[in-house]
Amino acid sequence: MSEWTMTETPRPKPPAFDPSDVTESNFTSYPAPHRAVNQMRYNRRLGEHVGLKNFGVNLTRIIPGGQSSYRHAHSHQDEFVYVLDGEVVLQTNAGEQVLLPGMCAGFPAGCGEAHRFVNRTRSDVRLLVIGDRTADDEITYPEVDMHAVLGPDGKYRFTTKSGEPL
Amino acid sequence: MSEWTMTETPRPKPPAFDPSDVTESNFTSYPAPHRAVNQMRYNRRLGEHVGLKNFGVNLTRIIPGGQSSYRHAHSHQDEFVYVLDGEVVLQTNAGEQVLLPGMCAGFPAGCGEAHRFVNRTRSDVRLLVIGDRTADDEITYPEVDMHAVLGPDGKYRFTTKSGEPL
Repeated sequence: MSEWTMTETPRPKPPAFDPSDVTESNFTSYPAPHRAVNQMRYNRRLGEHVGLKNFGVNLTRIIPGGQSSYRHAHSHQDEFVYVLDGEVVLQTNAGEQVLLPGMCAGFPAGCGEAHRFVNRTRSDVRLLVIGDRTADDEITYPEVDMHAVLGPDGKYRFTTKSGEPL
Repeated sequence: MSEWTMTETPRPKPPAFDPSDVTESNFTSYPAPHRAVNQMRYNRRLGEHVGLKNFGVNLTRIIPGGQSSYRHAHSHQDEFVYVLDGEVVLQTNAGEQVLLPGMCAGFPAGCGEAHRFVNRTRSDVRLLVIGDRTADDEITYPEVDMHAVLGPDGKYRFTTKSGEPL
């Protein structure tokens, strides 16, 4: 027996969990030419972890110098972002602004408001990112020669804007 | 001119915002016999505030003694909850557990895991609650004589379990 009294930390049981129990990955589905700059962010797929199918909930950690994605807009899917930790720059069509923890932003399907989150600080940024899975979604990228179309298998096909494979 | 230097607090601009800018309400669509106990929680409809339609994002504040809802399960809609502040009791079919800030829980459509969040502390609990809008949803309530069916107008119709109006 230990002479130390352990502080009891309650571990959540399913269907609850601690996000740190979910594998973190910097995988990106972007094609090779656009991949590297998008791998300075790490996702934990919280929604998939508990079997959700109608929408995704990602805990996204952006390391210093990283971005959440390229600036983009969805045609058919809504997106919502809640800032958990850190100071993050939100870039939209109108320019940029700094968001602090507790602030949030939403991008309705088809609004055309191309957005990304950039970490210009020396600390990690953590975001909760929610997006649904509506079919026929397309993603436009105003700043890179890339376009994505959601396939019936739930995966995006990436091409150049003129439709060449990437 | 003031002799004080004001600390500049950046105010977020659309499509970003501060949740405190969104009206908080303890409205519940529950029928009268089940209403009072469900009004000790206050919602800010963050997703609607920015025009999202595919899913809802609510910032739910449960005051001491309150509940998020009656224990319930959705037939067609996914639900996800992230604990922002406070210590909250999650009740499910299997019993109950305490969740702390940063923990989360997910309830896939049709899983039958009836759940609610209860505040037994002396401080407010704040949750981020996400649910989609899939049609034909039904909600079952194992502990009260109530049943809800989502109508084509996006509103739930409440009856007793045997179908009597409530």
